[in-house]
Amino acid sequence: MSGASGGPGFLAVDSGGSGLRAVVGTAERGPLARRTSAEPVRTGDRGIDPEHFMAQLVPLVRALTDETGPVRLTAAVVGATGLASLGDALRAELPDALARRFGVRRVALAADAVTAYVGALGPRPGAVIAGGTGLIAIGTDLTGWRRADGWGHLLGDCGGGAWIGRAGLEAALRAHDGREGGSARLLACAEEVFGPVAGLPGALYPRPDRPAVLASFAPQVAACADGDPVAADILRAAARHMAESAAAVCPSGGEPRLAATGGLFRMGDPLLVPLDEELAQRLPHARRVPAEGDPLHGSVRLAAELTAGPLTLPGDETLLCVTTTWGEGADHA
Amino acid sequence: MSGASGGPGFLAVDSGGSGLRAVVGTAERGPLARRTSAEPVRTGDRGIDPEHFMAQLVPLVRALTDETGPVRLTAAVVGATGLASLGDALRAELPDALARRFGVRRVALAADAVTAYVGALGPRPGAVIAGGTGLIAIGTDLTGWRRADGWGHLLGDCGGGAWIGRAGLEAALRAHDGREGGSARLLACAEEVFGPVAGLPGALYPRPDRPAVLASFAPQVAACADGDPVAADILRAAARHMAESAAAVCPSGGEPRLAATGGLFRMGDPLLVPLDEELAQRLPHARRVPAEGDPLHGSVRLAAELTAGPLTLPGDETLLCVTTTWGEGADHA
Repeated sequence: MSGASGGPGFLAVDSGGSGLRAVVGTAERGPLARRTSAEPVRTGDRGIDPEHFMAQLVPLVRALTDETGPVRLTAAVVGATGLASLGDALRAELPDALARRFGVRRVALAADAVTAYVGALGPRPGAVIAGGTGLIAIGTDLTGWRRADGWGHLLGDCGGGAWIGRAGLEAALRAHDGREGGSARLLACAEEVFGPVAGLPGALYPRPDRPAVLASFAPQVAACADGDPVAADILRAAARHMAESAAAVCPSGGEPRLAATGGLFRMGDPLLVPLDEELAQRLPHARRVPAEGDPLHGSVRLAAELTAGPLTLPGDETLLCVTTTWGEGADHA
Repeated sequence: MSGASGGPGFLAVDSGGSGLRAVVGTAERGPLARRTSAEPVRTGDRGIDPEHFMAQLVPLVRALTDETGPVRLTAAVVGATGLASLGDALRAELPDALARRFGVRRVALAADAVTAYVGALGPRPGAVIAGGTGLIAIGTDLTGWRRADGWGHLLGDCGGGAWIGRAGLEAALRAHDGREGGSARLLACAEEVFGPVAGLPGALYPRPDRPAVLASFAPQVAACADGDPVAADILRAAARHMAESAAAVCPSGGEPRLAATGGLFRMGDPLLVPLDEELAQRLPHARRVPAEGDPLHGSVRLAAELTAGPLTLPGDETLLCVTTTWGEGADHA
């Protein structure tokens, strides 16, 4: 396939806990090919490791351009989990590395919350709730960004998967102990999944992926919500926390759009029904819309825009940082 | 000092996160000498490590009997943190090891909740709330034991030090984000202790002692409670959780005693006033008393009783397990 030649091309990347996803396309024709690497980029003393990132990315891009035929890559967008807090080395080194390796001149590094936003709403004012194991809300009025929560499973992520699963397990153990607030049904579910609850601390605390273990119980909480008032209350509280976060970031004027995106919302009505109610109460002026796409879609959208000129959405030192590299030093073929 | 010779002697041990504390005494004269080792006993694949326990204990006992003069140790009580869930190897090996090394024939292994109970109330029916970084309630009617909570900082320990500190930090971050439920005063406190909150996740999550880091903020929550309604609500909720746990374990008949013990209660009135109210509401038949002593005191009490005969308090497979070792194989001097 050689039809990719011609107009300026782009590289769009989504880097997260399950690995890298990358797309090559052109401004004219959109995305042309997509590849995935299952190995997540390492995080070390310097935060997200730029060398490991490039080592993962180079073979992906080679495979992508083998598929598309020659593309003149002029812009790249990298959306990465943890970029805001762990992205210093990436911000410092990636633009140069991408320029040297692929000849890319314009690079945007975006927090995964930003690519989730753009994937869901595009370059329009509004607020997005991004929920998976964790939870963050992000909003913009097109002059700046606001974030709420996203502090991790011990400090916040209120209403996210780990939060819901943890609350469900606490309710199970309350039933086991004969404390108030227990749910015999969640206890039965917990024993089905994890075995006798006496072994639960030993199964959870030594694990490095404790938030994921907690989040793995969230679908059980949703499954119990029809008929179990304790489980239903947990999801109602989760919905309230999400709406609180959305309310903290949503533009107060105009008619902002409002979307929820991420794997958490696959649990459907038991969460979505109370969420709609809590959002309607706190943000009556916002227009609830379905998310248009995922974070990789957001990265593609930003990259296509970046080939043509400046981004519509506002830059931000840690959330969305565009770098233009000048000079002739590129060693790309 | 040689006055220790004569009547049967005992060894009482309290093993916890800050190391070992040991007492040698006699049934007749009570505790005679006390020593401390600052190194906590290791926990490995087999749970609490019996060899490391003995390696710590032997020099302590040598120092103790140097101080008391010769004592014929007939009974030993070991109270240990984590015994219920991590004590299999200790239960299997410690009685023999103590018999061989010191000639001790009767050994009781007690969960730290049990030694906390006995230290606070002695061998009487009632309920004890033991609060530090974690939280557990334990009660007995003298025919069996009941426990509630003590599941650790992710699954419960509701109302304990880590729980209070975590809730305080969440309220600080809510204020930072502009979410509902925030406290500007707790935010100011958190920044004073930990620096700018943007660095809080990086300061907390990589630490192996996350529960202790969270609990270190609990005194700040108590300090803010006078005047800050969010902080006061956190302590009220903590008190309610503790009372729920106490209610689940307290004997329903008679006039059981009820005490709170542990470092958590040093925060005083901001916690104790709501706790008394919540307990009065749920357990009007229980008699609130001050704790008489700490877990080491409980271990001493059990050990003195064990030199004379069977324990008043009921045995339990994991919580309070008495072993008598017969035979002549002891290699003690």
